[in-house]
Amino acid sequence: MLVFLNGKLVAEEEATVSIFDRGFLYGDGLFESLRVYRGKVFRWREHWERLTRGAEFLKIRIPFGMDDLAGHAAELIARNGLAEALLRITVSRGVGVRGYSPKGAEHPTVVMTLHPVIEDAGELTRAWRVVTASRRLPAGEALAEFKTCNKLAQVLARAEADAAGADEALVLNTDGDVVEGASSNLFWIADGTVCTPALLSGILAGVTRLVVLEICGKLGLRTAEARIKPVEFGRVEGAFVSLSTRGVIEIGEVDGQRIGTSLLTGRIRAEYEGMVSGKDEDGG
Amino acid sequence: MLVFLNGKLVAEEEATVSIFDRGFLYGDGLFESLRVYRGKVFRWREHWERLTRGAEFLKIRIPFGMDDLAGHAAELIARNGLAEALLRITVSRGVGVRGYSPKGAEHPTVVMTLHPVIEDAGELTRAWRVVTASRRLPAGEALAEFKTCNKLAQVLARAEADAAGADEALVLNTDGDVVEGASSNLFWIADGTVCTPALLSGILAGVTRLVVLEICGKLGLRTAEARIKPVEFGRVEGAFVSLSTRGVIEIGEVDGQRIGTSLLTGRIRAEYEGMVSGKDEDGG
Repeated sequence: MLVFLNGKLVAEEEATVSIFDRGFLYGDGLFESLRVYRGKVFRWREHWERLTRGAEFLKIRIPFGMDDLAGHAAELIARNGLAEALLRITVSRGVGVRGYSPKGAEHPTVVMTLHPVIEDAGELTRAWRVVTASRRLPAGEALAEFKTCNKLAQVLARAEADAAGADEALVLNTDGDVVEGASSNLFWIADGTVCTPALLSGILAGVTRLVVLEICGKLGLRTAEARIKPVEFGRVEGAFVSLSTRGVIEIGEVDGQRIGTSLLTGRIRAEYEGMVSGKDEDGG
Repeated sequence: MLVFLNGKLVAEEEATVSIFDRGFLYGDGLFESLRVYRGKVFRWREHWERLTRGAEFLKIRIPFGMDDLAGHAAELIARNGLAEALLRITVSRGVGVRGYSPKGAEHPTVVMTLHPVIEDAGELTRAWRVVTASRRLPAGEALAEFKTCNKLAQVLARAEADAAGADEALVLNTDGDVVEGASSNLFWIADGTVCTPALLSGILAGVTRLVVLEICGKLGLRTAEARIKPVEFGRVEGAFVSLSTRGVIEIGEVDGQRIGTSLLTGRIRAEYEGMVSGKDEDGG
């Protein structure tokens, strides 16, 4: 497989960064995981916008423009001949002075890698069994909105899901609310309303979260930003997670508590599938 | 400069890790910063113990024993001829499968680098002007105890200190308590008692924090784990930070609020200086 590294396509086994790269030292960087369908990246612009807003927040100057990097991504996909794939973009601050200060790091590292999609059809349609994880995210943390390379809480949450034989871990914030999945955003249906935690609860501003809210608007469904405690899942009409790499996936169980199936989840899911299958004109 | 990389000494410009190393992808790793005085590492055992406790927490198997790695560190110091230095040890989870799950990462990356100590004598004796930073640490987070490679909150806090022309940034937790510095632990003196936040407030278990508590015991000073809000610094008798790379440093000002000088800070500092100068038999 070829990967993109600072403007060049190189063999993945030769793709390395300095041990002084601040991405390696401190997780001082950002990334995006995008889905490639039939050779085309889904929602490139939205991912790019989150990446650049994050870069502004961290004061990292990305040395490529949107169309420029999109061209490199297209070349990467074509050269690897991988039409159904995940694309990861990583931007780290690069090498600077010793210590936490970001001073002197003038050359960010930019990497793009492609990953084959490994999933069977059953995997995509069955409801997920999820567990709540031990680590707490800081409530109200604005930095959480961006997909930074500080993902240990998510790595450990995922390890807890693995240990429990679950499909995903849900993560709580320091207020005790369930706010997102380790690699997904959370939705639930209550009183016929599609609910999701507010960005201010300290969650990732997921691209697929926005697509789901768009879909709800299109379908005329009521939506609300709301809060939920682990025990309250027993009372919801349905729940699902959203993630760029998989789309919309129903939650069947939270910590052993069975969750009902809402027709709304199916409608949102069908609409999303339409978009990514290219049947929807806006989906590209 | 030579660096240690997975068992070998290599030139620093050739020292690289894979772009798939989970340290680079997620900050999935740990590090230690130690001070080398006259060619000898200060408090190796304590740093090693924190590192290995962190590795157990993250389920990373460090492929070196304590004495083994200490031998490599001694060789690194000798070969570089750098008797006064900082030593950074980094252990990342290495390369695994795609995604947050730590499964399949069986070969951790181990790096040691040496950095010259750049400081003038005035730098070490004058009181620090510090500011409080915007990011909040999750209160009660056990993971914070370890020196993980997820340091964006600290990087951004340091950037705020830089922007304010300050020497260090103090960081609050989600309970609104001031709990530590971006790269130091916090102490203050109130009613003749040396106070410091509890580990449970979500702080790093600093090696120098422990040394300071040891010193207080030796000097017969009262100590307490306590809480402090930013405005309460106006009422303290004195305050200081502790960090392995610098020792004990008085705080002269917090967010423009002047802090008095306590004689206790001077006594603790003098004792610490004695230890690292080798006048104290226990200091090695």
